[in-house]
Amino acid sequence: MTTMINWLEKRADLSPNTDAVKLSDGTTYSFSELYHHARSMALQLKQEGIKSGDHVSVISPNHYRFLVTIHALNLIGAVSFLMNIRLSSAEIAFQLQDGDVSAVILDQRYENLVGDDLNVIDIHSGNLDQPLEQKSHSMDLDDLSHVIYTSGTTGQPKGVELTYGNHWWNANGSALNLGLYAHDRWLLSLPMFHVGGLSIVYRSVIYGIPLHLHESFDVEAIHDDIMNQGVTIMSVVSVMLDQLLERLGNDYYPEQFRCMLLGGGPAPKPLLTRARDKHVPVYQTYGMTETASQFCTLDDQNAFDKLGAAGKPLFPNQLDIVQDDESLPAQQVGEIVVHGPSVTKGYYKRPDETADKLQNGWLKTGDLGYFDKDGFLYVVDRRKDLIISGGENVYPAEIESVLKGHPHIADAGVVGQKNERWGEVPVAFIVEREPVDEQELTTYCQNHLANYKVPKTWYKTDELPRNAAKKLLRHQLQARLEE
Amino acid sequence: MTTMINWLEKRADLSPNTDAVKLSDGTTYSFSELYHHARSMALQLKQEGIKSGDHVSVISPNHYRFLVTIHALNLIGAVSFLMNIRLSSAEIAFQLQDGDVSAVILDQRYENLVGDDLNVIDIHSGNLDQPLEQKSHSMDLDDLSHVIYTSGTTGQPKGVELTYGNHWWNANGSALNLGLYAHDRWLLSLPMFHVGGLSIVYRSVIYGIPLHLHESFDVEAIHDDIMNQGVTIMSVVSVMLDQLLERLGNDYYPEQFRCMLLGGGPAPKPLLTRARDKHVPVYQTYGMTETASQFCTLDDQNAFDKLGAAGKPLFPNQLDIVQDDESLPAQQVGEIVVHGPSVTKGYYKRPDETADKLQNGWLKTGDLGYFDKDGFLYVVDRRKDLIISGGENVYPAEIESVLKGHPHIADAGVVGQKNERWGEVPVAFIVEREPVDEQELTTYCQNHLANYKVPKTWYKTDELPRNAAKKLLRHQLQARLEE
Repeated sequence: MTTMINWLEKRADLSPNTDAVKLSDGTTYSFSELYHHARSMALQLKQEGIKSGDHVSVISPNHYRFLVTIHALNLIGAVSFLMNIRLSSAEIAFQLQDGDVSAVILDQRYENLVGDDLNVIDIHSGNLDQPLEQKSHSMDLDDLSHVIYTSGTTGQPKGVELTYGNHWWNANGSALNLGLYAHDRWLLSLPMFHVGGLSIVYRSVIYGIPLHLHESFDVEAIHDDIMNQGVTIMSVVSVMLDQLLERLGNDYYPEQFRCMLLGGGPAPKPLLTRARDKHVPVYQTYGMTETASQFCTLDDQNAFDKLGAAGKPLFPNQLDIVQDDESLPAQQVGEIVVHGPSVTKGYYKRPDETADKLQNGWLKTGDLGYFDKDGFLYVVDRRKDLIISGGENVYPAEIESVLKGHPHIADAGVVGQKNERWGEVPVAFIVEREPVDEQELTTYCQNHLANYKVPKTWYKTDELPRNAAKKLLRHQLQARLEE
Repeated sequence: MTTMINWLEKRADLSPNTDAVKLSDGTTYSFSELYHHARSMALQLKQEGIKSGDHVSVISPNHYRFLVTIHALNLIGAVSFLMNIRLSSAEIAFQLQDGDVSAVILDQRYENLVGDDLNVIDIHSGNLDQPLEQKSHSMDLDDLSHVIYTSGTTGQPKGVELTYGNHWWNANGSALNLGLYAHDRWLLSLPMFHVGGLSIVYRSVIYGIPLHLHESFDVEAIHDDIMNQGVTIMSVVSVMLDQLLERLGNDYYPEQFRCMLLGGGPAPKPLLTRARDKHVPVYQTYGMTETASQFCTLDDQNAFDKLGAAGKPLFPNQLDIVQDDESLPAQQVGEIVVHGPSVTKGYYKRPDETADKLQNGWLKTGDLGYFDKDGFLYVVDRRKDLIISGGENVYPAEIESVLKGHPHIADAGVVGQKNERWGEVPVAFIVEREPVDEQELTTYCQNHLANYKVPKTWYKTDELPRNAAKKLLRHQLQARLEE
């Protein structure tokens, strides 16, 4: 067990007057202010009954209060369940129950997503400037900080357990790869309820650098921030990069902008080429919730030479390409397995799935890839059947399971269809029991699923391709789509 | 337990062609070459019978082979006991026996220091370019990497246990304080058998930056290295800084030279002022073997403003000023106690001293200091009675114990005397049993002690000041000296 002082408290001591955060309206808060606000919020939450070890859900879009809440729950020692605001109330209800959550801190716009049997706290209530006594807070690297749900091939979402240690190693591995400069400023526009955004929260505090917090992906505001406000690093997914390049037009980013960290699924080569032509330093990454965000990243020496590669595993991570438990040589495609201190210790209350995916400390990702002759990773296919739409992971099995719950649907199969804006969108093949119109199906899905999971096109068919064991053959559906 | 890939192996994969080391004759070796050499050396050492868990002593001045040997022993999983080459054979014999050392790897110049009952291996033997099969090496942060002996107030040297974790946190805490730049190059001239030099060995591999390895403190060679070879950081003790400033004369260091890390005891204020006048960015540090080197360091924002301060504890270290187990307010002098993941877990085979000095994870340093109103540490006095001579720690009790072993000496007391070049030198007060001349005493001490511990002046007296419990009152000797 490695116990240590709470990181925000430590940072507030080391860099009290450094900007911790800059909001898009120009407001800034120093690390000393952020720490005071987090302690004020922690005091309020304790008064609401939240204590160390509690499971607490947070449902909010990016906002300074969301950042403060994450730190406040860390100070209390509660485990925070960060939830995607785009989920349906049915999906939220599942996570609250599965996660044994006792309180929910939310933006009131999302109040209708939550039942009234829980302790519900408005994230915007309470005074952040309370008078406080001096006190020290500790944390342990082995303690759980967050549980974040991901879906899987079985359709049942499961909670990925992340410890403080996972975040620590992730933040340090990234600094050892990208370097750490006195004037660094990291633009945060990815949602903090996803691990990609959350990891920036920890990096800011560990590195002692400001994060530029955007409440949404407003191309104009972000473009201005990069051009005029000293941003040096930004994390994006492909759809964001595409729009930023379009906005950039014939202009160029200032020299201090040194890294566009691109995650959230394989990037189309033409996009990477466009970025290179504009001298935008894109560093492709590979990572997932289970690795507390980026696990492999290109470095500055190879950002332009190894177009399409996701780099090498960050210090001291390890990655291997295997088939039938044997390592494969360079150029051969196999399953990606990962090992290292930023990898999750397991799934909440899922001993079987944990044992199945994590063996001898190596996590089977289900993704396919290969090493080139220099040991750089190329990801050729994401987790079996996974659809990535605008950086959000969409699992067909989860949608199919909802569709098959509709009384007029006898069978359903979902696959991803290429989409210029979102990369992919889900589309559904259905076998009707009784006639049903598309509008009704869409509304039905919207009641059960986040909007990005709702099929965008409906194909009616007499029968779905299944093998002898009745397993759906999604690649045949995919082939039909391409015809 | 946090197991991970061996750091040098990892670095050789990430940065195979980056310079790992540059020797003063201009020779460079890449991380890939250093890794191959370390593996070749490990193979040879295994053939000599060294295996995982063995205690192996290394006795060598700075040399590329010393660096290779440190990594080779890590690859094997042996614990290396790094010994000061300036110790006498009696001191070495004590450490070898106390440390249960089974093999000694040495530079042949030091062969006479070691008895012939051990497995002695010439550090310069063996081919570093052996053909090798691919193999992966792991390490665990909780495993011992080194034991380094320090003396103490009782006079009996004791082995400080350092784990890989201690080095990891030290290296990362330093990077989070100083930043990490793509063009960084760290000049290593401090001996690698001291923790100050050893820590640079680990930083080089963890950061992926070259170390410029000097076999001795050759002012001309080091001056040239800083002026013309792109060095950005150097670790020094006061006596080195003094000579470098003198050599610098009316010139200035190039802009990329960004940090002169000054450790090894309190620095004289006039020296700090001279450095500031020459725009030399001196970052004063506070640390010791027990903290795997620097524990507190000034940062770039305060390097010039807080002259004389040793900064704040590196991320995520904690430091407190206490008296009778109570924290003291700012400006009040008390004992310095430290806590954090770079602090040793204890002294080898010394459960009582470990329990006495390490309580609830806080190490009592014995040093005195205070915080200013902004929380910056000022060290006012090093460990009780400690003499620091040219960066080497000298404990009076150890010298007194040797002196009292001489048949003609009835009693002896040692204190430090100010010295312009070395900071302090030890001087002895002796009560004779029978007349003895100074030359004989000096020779006698040289046979038992490292030269820097041999008293430089002898004062004969009829009686030493002792209290009722017969405890030597060294401060009265000190007062006599000042008269």
